[in-house]
Amino acid sequence: MKILFITGNKDKLSEAVAIMPEIEGCEIYLPEIQELDTKKIIELKLHEAIKQRPGIDLIVEDQSLVIDGINGLPGPFIKWFLKSLDVDGLYKMALKMGNQSAEAKTVIGYCSSVGEINFFEAIVKGKIVSPRGNIGWGWDPIFQPDGYKMTFAEMTMEQKKQLSMRGIALEKLKEYLASR
Amino acid sequence: MKILFITGNKDKLSEAVAIMPEIEGCEIYLPEIQELDTKKIIELKLHEAIKQRPGIDLIVEDQSLVIDGINGLPGPFIKWFLKSLDVDGLYKMALKMGNQSAEAKTVIGYCSSVGEINFFEAIVKGKIVSPRGNIGWGWDPIFQPDGYKMTFAEMTMEQKKQLSMRGIALEKLKEYLASR
Repeated sequence: MKILFITGNKDKLSEAVAIMPEIEGCEIYLPEIQELDTKKIIELKLHEAIKQRPGIDLIVEDQSLVIDGINGLPGPFIKWFLKSLDVDGLYKMALKMGNQSAEAKTVIGYCSSVGEINFFEAIVKGKIVSPRGNIGWGWDPIFQPDGYKMTFAEMTMEQKKQLSMRGIALEKLKEYLASR
Repeated sequence: MKILFITGNKDKLSEAVAIMPEIEGCEIYLPEIQELDTKKIIELKLHEAIKQRPGIDLIVEDQSLVIDGINGLPGPFIKWFLKSLDVDGLYKMALKMGNQSAEAKTVIGYCSSVGEINFFEAIVKGKIVSPRGNIGWGWDPIFQPDGYKMTFAEMTMEQKKQLSMRGIALEKLKEYLASR
């Protein structure tokens, strides 16, 4: 049974295929609406994806970064915060707002071939620190998971994989599919 | 010639009708995508609106608040910043980030009955201040226009109307339609 993962990101795709070999990548444009609730963003993407690829199992994922000092922002708007402020500016914002605690969150939305939607999420707690390291992408250099002295960008792919929110969420999806 | 203004906000509608009596309100759901460029957000809304109301002149508007100290954020994401931080939190963010200069911007997208899109924008410069006043809505209590000692929320509707970005943008649309 094939599952289409709608993404344009090759790293995300290869991570997913390593966990679930039945996953295939698919690049189609899905509008990303403004919402604080990641599930609503994914749901609308899945509805659009079904129209374009009917009768196939589909997954869409979204990552968000919830910073306590900014009352939960950027959340799903992380892409635009990074575009405007870069990692250093976002670190300084968290620092100046007085609370660097954060959660890195991945939500995977799975839509079965008959249109039933389920969500699988994973959270890694940590804090926002001054940028360090150059492995990975996005907010990796400023996110230090609790219990570690390295940021995501200082970890090897192997080390990071054990902490990967996407990996954990995919394992949950895998269990769900096996139990059906 | 009728023009449909897609909005659920009665105050915005009555302000528009006062300037252009041919405007009628219309409440339909239009997805608001994540984008820093307001015109792209409006363009997608107009494309969706045309599908639902073909052959009619349509307008959609979007307001954004560009704060220099946050490198242009919140921009079109202002709704979500206010939802997460409230006006006081947003003021504190601008203060802590060290630059309270800001621009309040309105963009109106007009789509003619044959599908041609034009944009009309207006900007009011000012600064983000500690919340004062209780007239109006949104970020009005923390926006003090340059050359004034009052925030938008301390001005009467009459005073504010002279500064209204929406009013200025609508006047531009009116001129454009008259010159065709």
